[in-house]
Amino acid sequence: MTASAAQKAGLPPGTIVFVGRQRVEKIAVSLIEYDAEHIAERGLDVSENWREWATRPAVAWINVTGVHDTELLRRIGDGFHIHHLVMEDIAHTVQRPKLEDYGDYLYLVMRMMYRDPKSENILAEQISFVVGATYLLTFQEIEGDVFDVIRDRLRTAKGRVRSQGPDYLAYALMDAIVDNYFVVMEEMNDRIETLQSRVVVGNGLDLLERIHRLKREIVFMRKNVWPLREVFSGMTKSESPLVTGGTRVYLRDLYEHAVQTIDAVETMRDTLSGALDIYVSSQGNRMNETMRVLTVIATIFMPLTFMAGIYGMNFELMPELRWRYGYAGAWAVMLTVGLGMTLYFKRRKWL
Amino acid sequence: MTASAAQKAGLPPGTIVFVGRQRVEKIAVSLIEYDAEHIAERGLDVSENWREWATRPAVAWINVTGVHDTELLRRIGDGFHIHHLVMEDIAHTVQRPKLEDYGDYLYLVMRMMYRDPKSENILAEQISFVVGATYLLTFQEIEGDVFDVIRDRLRTAKGRVRSQGPDYLAYALMDAIVDNYFVVMEEMNDRIETLQSRVVVGNGLDLLERIHRLKREIVFMRKNVWPLREVFSGMTKSESPLVTGGTRVYLRDLYEHAVQTIDAVETMRDTLSGALDIYVSSQGNRMNETMRVLTVIATIFMPLTFMAGIYGMNFELMPELRWRYGYAGAWAVMLTVGLGMTLYFKRRKWL
Amino acid sequence: MTASAAQKAGLPPGTIVFVGRQRVEKIAVSLIEYDAEHIAERGLDVSENWREWATRPAVAWINVTGVHDTELLRRIGDGFHIHHLVMEDIAHTVQRPKLEDYGDYLYLVMRMMYRDPKSENILAEQISFVVGATYLLTFQEIEGDVFDVIRDRLRTAKGRVRSQGPDYLAYALMDAIVDNYFVVMEEMNDRIETLQSRVVVGNGLDLLERIHRLKREIVFMRKNVWPLREVFSGMTKSESPLVTGGTRVYLRDLYEHAVQTIDAVETMRDTLSGALDIYVSSQGNRMNETMRVLTVIATIFMPLTFMAGIYGMNFELMPELRWRYGYAGAWAVMLTVGLGMTLYFKRRKWL
Amino acid sequence: MTASAAQKAGLPPGTIVFVGRQRVEKIAVSLIEYDAEHIAERGLDVSENWREWATRPAVAWINVTGVHDTELLRRIGDGFHIHHLVMEDIAHTVQRPKLEDYGDYLYLVMRMMYRDPKSENILAEQISFVVGATYLLTFQEIEGDVFDVIRDRLRTAKGRVRSQGPDYLAYALMDAIVDNYFVVMEEMNDRIETLQSRVVVGNGLDLLERIHRLKREIVFMRKNVWPLREVFSGMTKSESPLVTGGTRVYLRDLYEHAVQTIDAVETMRDTLSGALDIYVSSQGNRMNETMRVLTVIATIFMPLTFMAGIYGMNFELMPELRWRYGYAGAWAVMLTVGLGMTLYFKRRKWL
Amino acid sequence: MTASAAQKAGLPPGTIVFVGRQRVEKIAVSLIEYDAEHIAERGLDVSENWREWATRPAVAWINVTGVHDTELLRRIGDGFHIHHLVMEDIAHTVQRPKLEDYGDYLYLVMRMMYRDPKSENILAEQISFVVGATYLLTFQEIEGDVFDVIRDRLRTAKGRVRSQGPDYLAYALMDAIVDNYFVVMEEMNDRIETLQSRVVVGNGLDLLERIHRLKREIVFMRKNVWPLREVFSGMTKSESPLVTGGTRVYLRDLYEHAVQTIDAVETMRDTLSGALDIYVSSQGNRMNETMRVLTVIATIFMPLTFMAGIYGMNFELMPELRWRYGYAGAWAVMLTVGLGMTLYFKRRKWL
Repeated sequence: MTASAAQKAGLPPGTIVFVGRQRVEKIAVSLIEYDAEHIAERGLDVSENWREWATRPAVAWINVTGVHDTELLRRIGDGFHIHHLVMEDIAHTVQRPKLEDYGDYLYLVMRMMYRDPKSENILAEQISFVVGATYLLTFQEIEGDVFDVIRDRLRTAKGRVRSQGPDYLAYALMDAIVDNYFVVMEEMNDRIETLQSRVVVGNGLDLLERIHRLKREIVFMRKNVWPLREVFSGMTKSESPLVTGGTRVYLRDLYEHAVQTIDAVETMRDTLSGALDIYVSSQGNRMNETMRVLTVIATIFMPLTFMAGIYGMNFELMPELRWRYGYAGAWAVMLTVGLGMTLYFKRRKWL
Repeated sequence: MTASAAQKAGLPPGTIVFVGRQRVEKIAVSLIEYDAEHIAERGLDVSENWREWATRPAVAWINVTGVHDTELLRRIGDGFHIHHLVMEDIAHTVQRPKLEDYGDYLYLVMRMMYRDPKSENILAEQISFVVGATYLLTFQEIEGDVFDVIRDRLRTAKGRVRSQGPDYLAYALMDAIVDNYFVVMEEMNDRIETLQSRVVVGNGLDLLERIHRLKREIVFMRKNVWPLREVFSGMTKSESPLVTGGTRVYLRDLYEHAVQTIDAVETMRDTLSGALDIYVSSQGNRMNETMRVLTVIATIFMPLTFMAGIYGMNFELMPELRWRYGYAGAWAVMLTVGLGMTLYFKRRKWL
Repeated sequence: MTASAAQKAGLPPGTIVFVGRQRVEKIAVSLIEYDAEHIAERGLDVSENWREWATRPAVAWINVTGVHDTELLRRIGDGFHIHHLVMEDIAHTVQRPKLEDYGDYLYLVMRMMYRDPKSENILAEQISFVVGATYLLTFQEIEGDVFDVIRDRLRTAKGRVRSQGPDYLAYALMDAIVDNYFVVMEEMNDRIETLQSRVVVGNGLDLLERIHRLKREIVFMRKNVWPLREVFSGMTKSESPLVTGGTRVYLRDLYEHAVQTIDAVETMRDTLSGALDIYVSSQGNRMNETMRVLTVIATIFMPLTFMAGIYGMNFELMPELRWRYGYAGAWAVMLTVGLGMTLYFKRRKWL
Repeated sequence: MTASAAQKAGLPPGTIVFVGRQRVEKIAVSLIEYDAEHIAERGLDVSENWREWATRPAVAWINVTGVHDTELLRRIGDGFHIHHLVMEDIAHTVQRPKLEDYGDYLYLVMRMMYRDPKSENILAEQISFVVGATYLLTFQEIEGDVFDVIRDRLRTAKGRVRSQGPDYLAYALMDAIVDNYFVVMEEMNDRIETLQSRVVVGNGLDLLERIHRLKREIVFMRKNVWPLREVFSGMTKSESPLVTGGTRVYLRDLYEHAVQTIDAVETMRDTLSGALDIYVSSQGNRMNETMRVLTVIATIFMPLTFMAGIYGMNFELMPELRWRYGYAGAWAVMLTVGLGMTLYFKRRKWL
Repeated sequence: MTASAAQKAGLPPGTIVFVGRQRVEKIAVSLIEYDAEHIAERGLDVSENWREWATRPAVAWINVTGVHDTELLRRIGDGFHIHHLVMEDIAHTVQRPKLEDYGDYLYLVMRMMYRDPKSENILAEQISFVVGATYLLTFQEIEGDVFDVIRDRLRTAKGRVRSQGPDYLAYALMDAIVDNYFVVMEEMNDRIETLQSRVVVGNGLDLLERIHRLKREIVFMRKNVWPLREVFSGMTKSESPLVTGGTRVYLRDLYEHAVQTIDAVETMRDTLSGALDIYVSSQGNRMNETMRVLTVIATIFMPLTFMAGIYGMNFELMPELRWRYGYAGAWAVMLTVGLGMTLYFKRRKWL
């Protein structure tokens, strides 16, 4: 939830309004047009004749980095005949992952995740796909290097991506995103393990807050990963002719990866809540230990102090005070009591 | 649950009885009649010929503010041929959000939410929609400014609302209500964050009660938002001819917004229960700290007091008492013991 | 679970055995026969020709108060050709709410709930409905005034009940029962709120037991209300010709009421478990407070007592003892330490 | 899970291996053959011509007590043409309740439960039913008297059992088993109530272990009762011609009983977990009480001891020591402080 | 989640990359070719003509131990016309159990589990099955003796395995794997029981960590066993002609075993969480006990020390000091108080 989502209240539906935090200075639009034999790359700008790219026979992949230029979005939407609700969602960067079939094109939104090397937080950006018969539009909030792998495959014609349509290209990109989840989760896993080893010996609320920060991150991860099950299985089983039979097998595989991600997230969640349990229990243990020390000290010294108090009394008739070995005897009794107590606590494993 | 709901026990079904708290002095009924070209506005009163408005070709939007005038409701119900159970529900302001298809019209009820600027509580009012072929009836408990945006759009013919039927108008109003949820939730989110930062350092049951008040508000929110999923998806997939194909796309979008709201509510709930965990743990931590202080104090001073007690005994034969440096020696031993203890606790991180 | 349910073990199925606690001295059977124009009332007894009432054209409502007379039940069952398993269930007053379609008649069982004014407990009685084409049989365990409202409506021909068949009559009775749930729940709600305000300041296990007694009552309520969803929706969607189209709309409304009841029960459950949380936390708080007092006392007096002990030692050479302002100086030091400690704890908010 | 289940690893499927604990010395096989007019009883042994019993027109009920004789099971299986997987399951006494339709016969397994009068534990034995067109095979692990009731009904032709096929007989036996659950549960309920009343005053881990033992028993009960829902509803709705229409009504009733059992088990579980809550809270209460006593004692005596220490100092110039009423005054001050403290704690309800 | 899964990010789908830990030095490929009359065994190597084995009439079972040789996997995949996504999954040893129908063959993956005798940990290896019309390919990560039983059955023609197709063979192998789960679980059960008996008397975080290690193992077990329900029921109900009717009965049985495993895992989980409860409660009990000892000691000795302090005061006028039995009287009072306290605590069961 961001302030901007609330600011949108009152605008008519389909109004393209950028919601989120602007993260790139300048919007960049790149085009890769390819078929099995040829490939061409160039940059595009707002004044482009967008309609043309929607209708040429070769596959056109247009990637837009930065979604805060609503005018650009409006023009692209008009050129590709895309419903304004879709364009609105693209600019509104707080979508849940979802798949919508608009007949002529599929609209799919998911979230790229990566770790900010500076702040150690998990960042996420919304990635939108519009899959048409001969084109693929992708919209991302910031430049990322995850798509570069696919660009390389296109350029070098590695794998099957050049010989397939925009549905396969979209699949390849989504696969790259999901693969990247594993990179992020691995790093989280490392932090969880560090935490787990510290939780037994450590103390302080600092640790607790770390646990809860991690928990929030896992919940965030989960929220972005769970709906993917539905999205990918929806696409696998979709009746849209835009998804070809060959690609469906790959989508099923992608679905499996999403399920594995969910599994891994759930496991992390369990591990973390186990760590929390241990934390709370170790609090109790430390309290027990402190109590034991206190009890032992009090139990040993209270009787001794009492005895010393006895012979500090000023009664005139206290025969022991005049005995020859009175003082030594007092010491003897006190040492006996002290040692006896100590032994008793040793036997009870309190010391 | 309000007292009034119970007072209704025993009345025949379909009896229109106002249940709730009356919140406006005087009931106001406004009419906006429009088509793509024209628009007219006027106020209505009880003695209106209601039947007429149900049958004219242009779209008639009748908005009733205040539902405690059962006579008015009865007349409207008769005029528009609305089932008396629907009229009963409209006056009974404790409905869960729901959608009912009566063939000639759809009955839909949901809850508007806003924050009371004075009491800081979340208030809610029940908003009922009766969507006919050429008319839309809306019933609200208090005047609100959320609908004004739509009125403006109607007047200025902004957006597509003027060229569409009552189903789209209903959608636009519901969209405005859901958008407003985000405004309320943002404010709640701020309060949760304030709480979260206070929970680590704070103490006292006051904090706990604040957590639980927020929790109740979230539960209340949740109860009003959850059923909307079903309501909107039911309307999207409804076979009623009253919902036109063009509006369905917008309803699907509205459904998505409802799901986002639910998501946000769930996230708030998780955050809050995390705050509760931290609160409980910080209680334990504070206890641990207190215990530690007590133990350290007792462990340092009990042996010292014991030693002082020893040399306060009145035995006649206590050679140390006559030693030249007896007193200084005693101090030396006591300081050694005291410092030793202190160092020991320092090393154990108890100090 | 009652002892009697176990005592039935070993009997052949369909044996009518009264299970429960007998609550009326004498069984009363009343008949109301009506159609749109006429209405007649009389009492019936065991030796009645029951078959006759099953076959007359006017609607016959036979209400039996007390189900421990198995002979009566057997005769009624025979007269109306009702399956002996149904008659067995009627006498076995520990049924879950359920609906069974036997073709010629529907069997429906639910539970009336009311608060015992003496014991403050929630009581419940089983109410069975057998809905035939021209008759309605109802069986209740004790006399109740909830049905009187419907009787009055029949007599005065208020509402639509006189012009409808036994299905509508059954609906009206069930509606009266569900309406009464709200009365009971309101009273529970009051008690929960009282508890909630006491839980912050209160202590003792007494409070905890009250919470748990209320919890048990809510669970009991819940168990009787949850299945009603299924029962009423089953009846609404039933293909039985015994339920007429006109009544179905009312049943859908009744279903909504049941869902509202469930909602209210769930809310009470949440509130109560929140009260439990606060109770447990306030226990922890009280312990913290006690600990703090103890620690403060010990920390202030232990050093002081130690100092007093020092000058209580009997060394011959203790120069301070002979100083002119020795005693005053000791007091000064001790007061300084004591006040210093007190200020320190004030600053740490321990006092 | 028993050791034996693991020992089976590596054997080919369908190998009949006894898994469980042998509980009868000698296997007994009894036959009751009956139709509406005749009934005959005799014992059978291994060398019987089993095929014959499968094909005679009258209903043959063969009851086998003890399932560790794999040779006998093999022969019966061959004679009645029963799949070896079924025979394997019969000997493998750790089955979950289930229903399997093999076309010519139904295989049904459930668990009889009773309380061991000696050990107070709940015992269970596996009961298998093979329902054919003209025969019913039942396999139990130990002799039980639950079936005797049905035998009596058969002999005396009481109820409808003699006039019905093996499906009704199977129903009657299963009904007897389910009825017996109520007997067991009643006894458990008594123990839970005893526990509940002890939990408030009691202490010690002994109580906790009792709670957990009961919990395990409830979980065990639950595991054996839950699948019955599915089993009985599966049989009610089964398309097998082996289940006649008349019997289905009874099976639906049986299903209701199973649901009631589940309900009762769930209620017991809730009650028990409430008892656990109270136990934990009463632990906290007792700690609070102990702490309070300690704090009160320390707070009263520490200042007093300090004062006594003051006047035990040996300063030469301590004017109070020479006052006439010095000693009495000291007592007065100390009593005042002590009483003041006591009153203060009384007012704070700590005493 | 392993590092390797993340390293795969960026590679085109269908790239066979070994993911996991290499566990065998050298990959071994064995072939068993059989029909009802003949059986032949031999080893295979990479350069084999794999296509041949896919097309011969007899059943060919090829078992590959070690999946890190991607070249071998590629060749096998090509020879048997297996989709490269399947081959990728085989090498990627972090799959969830799943079943995929590729028309000409079924791909099934599950996990073999066994206990490492050295480290006491549960180990798991991924086992992949490719079931064709006349061949079965199995891929395991390490040599295991579980399959030897089936090899023996094949060689000795014991059971029905020789007369059936590859589907039955696959079933037999899967059955052997599931049977082995019971062996592992039995061992876990033993450890849980040991833990349970130690938890009442034991202390220390060591025990808590053992509980959590076991919990993690159970969660791991659960994760591998839960999906088997779906896998086996999917195979039972599959419409693939590769699964013959005769085998389906066995698969249903296997499904039952999987459900039993799940049941057992859930029971272990419950038992363990019960043990955790007892652990936490016994922590509380120990704290209570310590507190009680401390309180008793303090309550007995503080008043005594105070009294000794009184008569240690140096007032000139303290008449008791000069009484003849003053000292004895002081002792008498102190003993009385001490014994009184002790008796009081005895009566309150604090001692």
